[in-house]
Amino acid sequence: MLPQIAKFFGPTNLRNCSPDSYRKLREIICKFEQGAILGNDIQLTDKEIKVNDTIMCLKMDEYNRGVEDPNQFVPGYHIFKRLNDIEKSPLFQLLRKMPKGGALKTHDFSMCSTNFLIDLTYRKHLWACTVNDGCKIVQFLFSKDKPKKMLHEGGKWETMDEIRDRRGEENVRKKLKMLFSMYPLSKIQSNDKAWDHMMGIFALIDGILNYYPIWGEYYYNALKEFNEDGVQYVEVRSLLKRLYCLGGERLPAKETLQVYNDELKNFKADNPDFIDSKIIYSPLRHTTPDKIKGHVKACTKLNKEFPNLLIGFDLVGQETMKYPLKMFVNELLKMPPHIEFYFHAGQTNLYGSPLDENLIDAVLLGTRRIGHAYAITKHPLVMQLAKRFGIAIEVCPICNQVLQLGADYRNHPAATLIANDIPFVLSSGNPSFWRTKPLSHDFYMAFLGIAPRNADLKFLKRTAKNSIRHSALSDEEKANAMQKWKTKWEKWIDWTIENTEKILEKPNE
Amino acid sequence: MLPQIAKFFGPTNLRNCSPDSYRKLREIICKFEQGAILGNDIQLTDKEIKVNDTIMCLKMDEYNRGVEDPNQFVPGYHIFKRLNDIEKSPLFQLLRKMPKGGALKTHDFSMCSTNFLIDLTYRKHLWACTVNDGCKIVQFLFSKDKPKKMLHEGGKWETMDEIRDRRGEENVRKKLKMLFSMYPLSKIQSNDKAWDHMMGIFALIDGILNYYPIWGEYYYNALKEFNEDGVQYVEVRSLLKRLYCLGGERLPAKETLQVYNDELKNFKADNPDFIDSKIIYSPLRHTTPDKIKGHVKACTKLNKEFPNLLIGFDLVGQETMKYPLKMFVNELLKMPPHIEFYFHAGQTNLYGSPLDENLIDAVLLGTRRIGHAYAITKHPLVMQLAKRFGIAIEVCPICNQVLQLGADYRNHPAATLIANDIPFVLSSGNPSFWRTKPLSHDFYMAFLGIAPRNADLKFLKRTAKNSIRHSALSDEEKANAMQKWKTKWEKWIDWTIENTEKILEKPNE
Repeated sequence: MLPQIAKFFGPTNLRNCSPDSYRKLREIICKFEQGAILGNDIQLTDKEIKVNDTIMCLKMDEYNRGVEDPNQFVPGYHIFKRLNDIEKSPLFQLLRKMPKGGALKTHDFSMCSTNFLIDLTYRKHLWACTVNDGCKIVQFLFSKDKPKKMLHEGGKWETMDEIRDRRGEENVRKKLKMLFSMYPLSKIQSNDKAWDHMMGIFALIDGILNYYPIWGEYYYNALKEFNEDGVQYVEVRSLLKRLYCLGGERLPAKETLQVYNDELKNFKADNPDFIDSKIIYSPLRHTTPDKIKGHVKACTKLNKEFPNLLIGFDLVGQETMKYPLKMFVNELLKMPPHIEFYFHAGQTNLYGSPLDENLIDAVLLGTRRIGHAYAITKHPLVMQLAKRFGIAIEVCPICNQVLQLGADYRNHPAATLIANDIPFVLSSGNPSFWRTKPLSHDFYMAFLGIAPRNADLKFLKRTAKNSIRHSALSDEEKANAMQKWKTKWEKWIDWTIENTEKILEKPNE
Repeated sequence: MLPQIAKFFGPTNLRNCSPDSYRKLREIICKFEQGAILGNDIQLTDKEIKVNDTIMCLKMDEYNRGVEDPNQFVPGYHIFKRLNDIEKSPLFQLLRKMPKGGALKTHDFSMCSTNFLIDLTYRKHLWACTVNDGCKIVQFLFSKDKPKKMLHEGGKWETMDEIRDRRGEENVRKKLKMLFSMYPLSKIQSNDKAWDHMMGIFALIDGILNYYPIWGEYYYNALKEFNEDGVQYVEVRSLLKRLYCLGGERLPAKETLQVYNDELKNFKADNPDFIDSKIIYSPLRHTTPDKIKGHVKACTKLNKEFPNLLIGFDLVGQETMKYPLKMFVNELLKMPPHIEFYFHAGQTNLYGSPLDENLIDAVLLGTRRIGHAYAITKHPLVMQLAKRFGIAIEVCPICNQVLQLGADYRNHPAATLIANDIPFVLSSGNPSFWRTKPLSHDFYMAFLGIAPRNADLKFLKRTAKNSIRHSALSDEEKANAMQKWKTKWEKWIDWTIENTEKILEKPNE
């Protein structure tokens, strides 16, 4: 296209042309730009055009108010400061109901709402270890008797019932609500600090979620919460930790997968419109090549036992200078080719660092998707390769903000992906820790803050469909998945048309 | 290149290759990426290689400390919070001395240091209008007698001497230091508020700088401060306001240019190593097509009188929905082709808005450079056209931060320009208002925070040379300019080699 356009320009520019020719060429350029943007291939049905009018009315109302008064434009702020405002947005409410396809980047321990997590702390046999004279909970453990070991020296074990009696139930609930989240914002001063904080939450809830009788319940509830948020398919990065029993004994990782398998079966039986869920085996990256060798073997073995459930491999945890992906190439190349890679890479703004170069290794290793790839716009070649080979970028806007990579959604690099029509999917990462819905908040921020002003239902539909296209489902499964999504989508279209008046009259303060 | 690389990949990826082949392809990809980055065409001399070692030693020291402790990494913070730290950086001190070529985006009223501006307030006949019981200065005017008119109702005119007597000299100096700047940071809550604040400073100092006997002095001093900062060439966006005399009468705009002309002549005579300065006529964009018609005529006329000085046209002030560039196309197309355009465009993060589309009009109108183009990475076609036609982007990192477009230098879109080798120059915009050096702080932020980790002297040299290549100088003038820059550059290289030990041993707290 460029050479043709360049021809129009003549030797240098359009300075010599008439206003009329100017306008015509401008139109061509704008159409070309528009045509290259993600979602442009979608043809809306008549019904969808009506819904599009509604959704764009809501969007432009919110957008224009934000232009008038930037203080009112939510994507310019940290989500922690505007979570309540979003709840009141009619646009958000409509997006909540929208069938979004799949969430392809979630993590096993950070999927459920805080309240669900707090409710789990009422379970029998749950002990908590406190420090600072009983003020700070630092560890949980299910145990028949008072646990003997503890991770924090000088701590004190009590049952949760005792703690609630001592400090008051409401106080404990409030305290747990903070402990299970990245709030308050003032605590997070850098990307590193945010990571430390997040890893601290993972460590804290480990004793609750790794308990054999709890884990299945957590996963089942996660699917439920995602499904209620319009997500019909979920891929989970899982550490496949070994679950423990009341007596303290650890079960083999196979049992963890067995729980996933059984609960998924239950959930699908209870919710026939739900598509499926898959597991990506994702150990922590801060390790040795030798350990990775072991993980590759374990993954290969577990995949044989659960070939339809455990379908991929990734490494998780903060990317650091010390553990670049290239360190593990020899071991990773030994993974059987049918177990696909779904690497996190380039979740950094340190351009030219080894973290940033993980993008190159991810692509060279044949990754099917890239988690975050926040730095990809600084790697035009990687971007082109992603487009050429259909490697989708898993964009998690809110996660990037909370982990202090970027402050303003309007500057998120995904805008450049949209402009270049690089395949991408929207996901949420660890919504549990930022108290957001499983996927709706990320859709809201992307639609209102990252995508172009005129991005409309075509953009949303393409994004939802992309999540099935770029999933780990087989071609046959995808056909079925698309059908299930379409059924829900059409219902949502009908519902929106029926309720247009009500949706549009809703006051928005 | 992409097709060749794609061939290596085979049908999907490298999963089947040996670790050795993997490493070889990885090397090719990295070399290709590196080769595509800005500055890669530069061949360093033996002497420059030595200086490069020194500069990279300073850079990596600061960079690595920043990775260890993000709290120490200046480009992750607002410049207002770290101005003093930068002053102590040996890297910054070396960059200060480095000959940087030209500053191509400066604005007439915001070039000089605050102290120089404060000193001007001691001049005879300067009156100030105060409100809030004499607490707040809202207007300045040179006048023999007490001025009668005022812009702010209920104000009170006093001479500056009276104000200093009444409030104490030190207090007044402190107050003026704040008034003449964008400080404190807490006052700036959004892009709009930042603009309002900045336009307020312009309005406030208008009465000082527009005074006929002052203006020449201000411009001469600006050239002096820039030259001392290693800038040998300056292009000024000027509103070409009509200067006033002590009696209040206004001189024609021609006189303003005459002052530029005379002072430039003086400055060049006093500083033979200085290259030159040019003026870009830049009225405010918040106006009617009819007014633009008048400006085009005025510009054409003034260019005839000062063909070597007034060489281009631009529109300045905040880009808004209400005044897109396309509104003025008919009038702008009437500009004689030898008067080049240097449009501000896309200084926004509102993707898909009319502000953002100004980028398209700037390019279609044949702009020679684009001011800011902050949004250009969301317009791949515009980026390609910029590369094809050698349209340089004027990147002003600190200005973007102060005007609240982006918070963290590591996310600045210029990284994507560097990765794609899009022509760009570094400039400072309005350094006076953020108390930075004319160009050194922007070089420091770009080098340490925006460019890739391994960007080195090649990057700096290319950036300096680009400022001459993309200037408004004629080819003959450029040859001469390059020679003057080179002479200084070689001196700096020699000086750095001589002082290497001293430079490297400097303690950095």
